[in-house]
Amino acid sequence: MGLIICDAEYPAAGVFTTNQFRASCVDFSRTALLGGVLRGLVVNSGNANCATGEQGAKDTVRMAQLVSESVGIDGPIAVASTGVIGHHLDMQKVEKGILDASKNLSTDPKPFIEAILTTDLVEKWAGASWGSDELSTPKNPIELTGEAFVYGVCKGSGMISPNMATMLGYVVTDLDLSHLDIQSVLRQANAVSFNCMTVDSDTSTNDMVILIASGLSGIAPSEAEAVKIISRVCTELAKQVAKDGEGATKLIEVRVTGTENPAQVARSIADSPLVKTAMFGCDPNWGRVIMATGKSGVPLDVSKAVLHFEIGEERYMLFENGEPARFDPAKVSTALKADHVIIDLNLGEGETSTIYTCDFGYGYVRINAEYHT
Amino acid sequence: MGLIICDAEYPAAGVFTTNQFRASCVDFSRTALLGGVLRGLVVNSGNANCATGEQGAKDTVRMAQLVSESVGIDGPIAVASTGVIGHHLDMQKVEKGILDASKNLSTDPKPFIEAILTTDLVEKWAGASWGSDELSTPKNPIELTGEAFVYGVCKGSGMISPNMATMLGYVVTDLDLSHLDIQSVLRQANAVSFNCMTVDSDTSTNDMVILIASGLSGIAPSEAEAVKIISRVCTELAKQVAKDGEGATKLIEVRVTGTENPAQVARSIADSPLVKTAMFGCDPNWGRVIMATGKSGVPLDVSKAVLHFEIGEERYMLFENGEPARFDPAKVSTALKADHVIIDLNLGEGETSTIYTCDFGYGYVRINAEYHT
Repeated sequence: MGLIICDAEYPAAGVFTTNQFRASCVDFSRTALLGGVLRGLVVNSGNANCATGEQGAKDTVRMAQLVSESVGIDGPIAVASTGVIGHHLDMQKVEKGILDASKNLSTDPKPFIEAILTTDLVEKWAGASWGSDELSTPKNPIELTGEAFVYGVCKGSGMISPNMATMLGYVVTDLDLSHLDIQSVLRQANAVSFNCMTVDSDTSTNDMVILIASGLSGIAPSEAEAVKIISRVCTELAKQVAKDGEGATKLIEVRVTGTENPAQVARSIADSPLVKTAMFGCDPNWGRVIMATGKSGVPLDVSKAVLHFEIGEERYMLFENGEPARFDPAKVSTALKADHVIIDLNLGEGETSTIYTCDFGYGYVRINAEYHT
Repeated sequence: MGLIICDAEYPAAGVFTTNQFRASCVDFSRTALLGGVLRGLVVNSGNANCATGEQGAKDTVRMAQLVSESVGIDGPIAVASTGVIGHHLDMQKVEKGILDASKNLSTDPKPFIEAILTTDLVEKWAGASWGSDELSTPKNPIELTGEAFVYGVCKGSGMISPNMATMLGYVVTDLDLSHLDIQSVLRQANAVSFNCMTVDSDTSTNDMVILIASGLSGIAPSEAEAVKIISRVCTELAKQVAKDGEGATKLIEVRVTGTENPAQVARSIADSPLVKTAMFGCDPNWGRVIMATGKSGVPLDVSKAVLHFEIGEERYMLFENGEPARFDPAKVSTALKADHVIIDLNLGEGETSTIYTCDFGYGYVRINAEYHT
C-alpha cells in the first residue's frame, strides 16, 4: 500500500488505459481528477480489483475515504490497484495498510517505490532539474538540484500482465503549471514516452499515469517547456519498464524515419514475436525486421529501406536499398549480446519515431505460462 | 522442388501475401494468373528468393521457363518459393530439381506434399467429396468418392517465419467453375479459412494460395456451393497449420459472437501472447481473455460478456455478465491439457467469427531464437 499526500490541493492530471474492460479505480480516479486537482493518491499492489462488480467499485470508493480519514484531509484522492484480476480486495488488510502508511508519511519516496511493485525486478524512478539537460537520478527528489524539479516513479514489467503486473506511473513536480492545461501537458508527454513502449502488445485493465504539480518553486514554464521536461522523465521511466519487461535481457529501441506513419512501422517491428525472439537469440536476422516493416500497413518504398543496428558505439548496416548489405553475422551476433540495441530503419525523408521494447525469451513464457490463478 | 502439371490450361485463381516486402514469385504468379488459367506450378522450399533484387526476379522467371521446357508444355506457370530470406537461389540445383521432378510426374500427391515442407512437423492435406458433408481424408485424391472432389495440400508452421517457413496452399478440384468468378470464389473461401488463422501475428513475404479447377467432373456448382466446399477443405488445412504452429502443443479455436466486429475481437484474443502462454501453461486464466477482448478496439458491453472454454465434450463457464463465474480451476487446468481448446466468448446478439491459432511456449522461442542466419 502506497500513499502520496499533498500539503494542499494541487493541479493534477491523469491518463488511463484504453482497455474497455477496466478496473473501477480507473473510472474513480478519472472522476476524482475532473476538478483538475488532487489532494493525494493511494495505490495497492497484488490485487487489481478488476472484474469484481459492484462490491469492487464500493471498495475503491472506500479506499479513498480511508485515506481522507486516516490522514485527516479533504479533497480528491486518486486510487490505483495493480495485481491479480477477478478477486475482491481484503478490505481489512487494505484498511490496516492505509492506516500504517498514513502514520509513516515522509519525504522519502523509497517506501512508495517499493509498495507499487509486483513482478518488477528493479525499482524505477527518474528525475530532472529545471534548467539542466542532464537527467538526474537521485532516488530522493530532495537531492535534485536546480530551482525546480520533475520526479517520477513507476512500475510495470509487462506492458501488461493483467494477473501480475500493470503499468502505473506517478510524476510530481514543483513547477507551477496552473496557467497551463495540465491534462494536455501530461497527454503530450505520455504520447512520446509511455505510449511509445510495448512489452507484449497487450494493454492493461488498470494502467494509469498521474501528474501532480505543486507550483512551490514559483517557476511557470511555457507549455512546450513543461512538456519537454516531463517527457524527459517519463521517457526515462518508459525505458526502465521496457528493459525490465518480463523475461527480458535487453532494451530495444526501434527508431524509424520516413513514411507517413513511422510510429506505426516502429510498433509493428517492436511487437513482432519473430523480431523479439531473434533479439533474444542475438541473431542479426534483418529479414524479420523487413517482414515486420512490410506488414505494418503503412505505404512505403521498399527500394529506399536502409537498416542499421546501433549497439554501443558501433553502427552495423544490414540492409540497403532493397537488398541485403555485406556484414559479418558472427560479429553482429556477438555485439547483440549487449543490453541495449537500437534498430534504426530509414525509409526516406521525414520524421523519426521511436518505440521502446524488449526481447522475448524463455523467461516471458516461464513467467506467464507457469503462473497459475 | 514440387510440380503440379495440368493436362490443359484450367481455370485458376490465387490469393497472395499483403506484405509490402514480398518475394518476386508473388508478383510473377499474380501476373501468370491474369488470364484466369494455369497450366502448372512449381514450388521450391529452403530458399524464399525474397529481397534478392533483379537477379532474384530473373531466377523466378527462369524457374517457370524450366518447367515449360522440362515438361514440354506451353501456358502460364505459377512459381512459389519458401525458406530463408535474402539469399540467391542456386540455379544449378533448381534446374536439376525441376528436371528430376518433371521425369517423375504421377497422380500421387505425396512427393509434392513432402517437397513443400520446411519447419513443418507434419504433412498437411484435406479433401472433400461433392455431395457429402463428411470431410474425407485419403492422402490421394483419387481415393475420394463422389462425382467430384476438392483436394488441398498446404505447408506453414509459423503463420510466417520469414527465415524458415511461410504459408503455401494448393487446392485442386475437378468441379467446373468456368461459369463463375473463380478468383472471387477463392477469395471468399480464403477469407473464412486461411485468413482466420494466426500463429504469431506476423505476415509472410511469400504467402500464396492457388486454386485450380479442371472441370473434368462436369459438375458446375453455384458460387455459394463452390465457396462452401472449397472453404471446408481450406478450413481443415488452416486448422492443421495452426495446430502445427512452431512449438505449439494445441489447436485453439477462438469463437466470438456479437459486437459489430466479432472477427477483430477474436483476432485480438488469438494474437495475445498472454492468452497463448496461459494456454501453454494449461492455466484457466480468463482475465487475460477479458483483457484481450477489451483492448480489441471494438465497442462492447462488458456486462454482457459470457466466456466458456469448450474442451472435448465439456463446457466450462469462466466469466458471466461482468463477473467471474464459479468454477474449479484445478479441473479446468487438467482439461486444458487437451490438444484442442475452444475459447467461446459471447458478447450479445450477432454473428459468430472463429479464428484458429495455437499456444505459445518454449518451443516457439527455441525455434525462433536459436535459429541463426
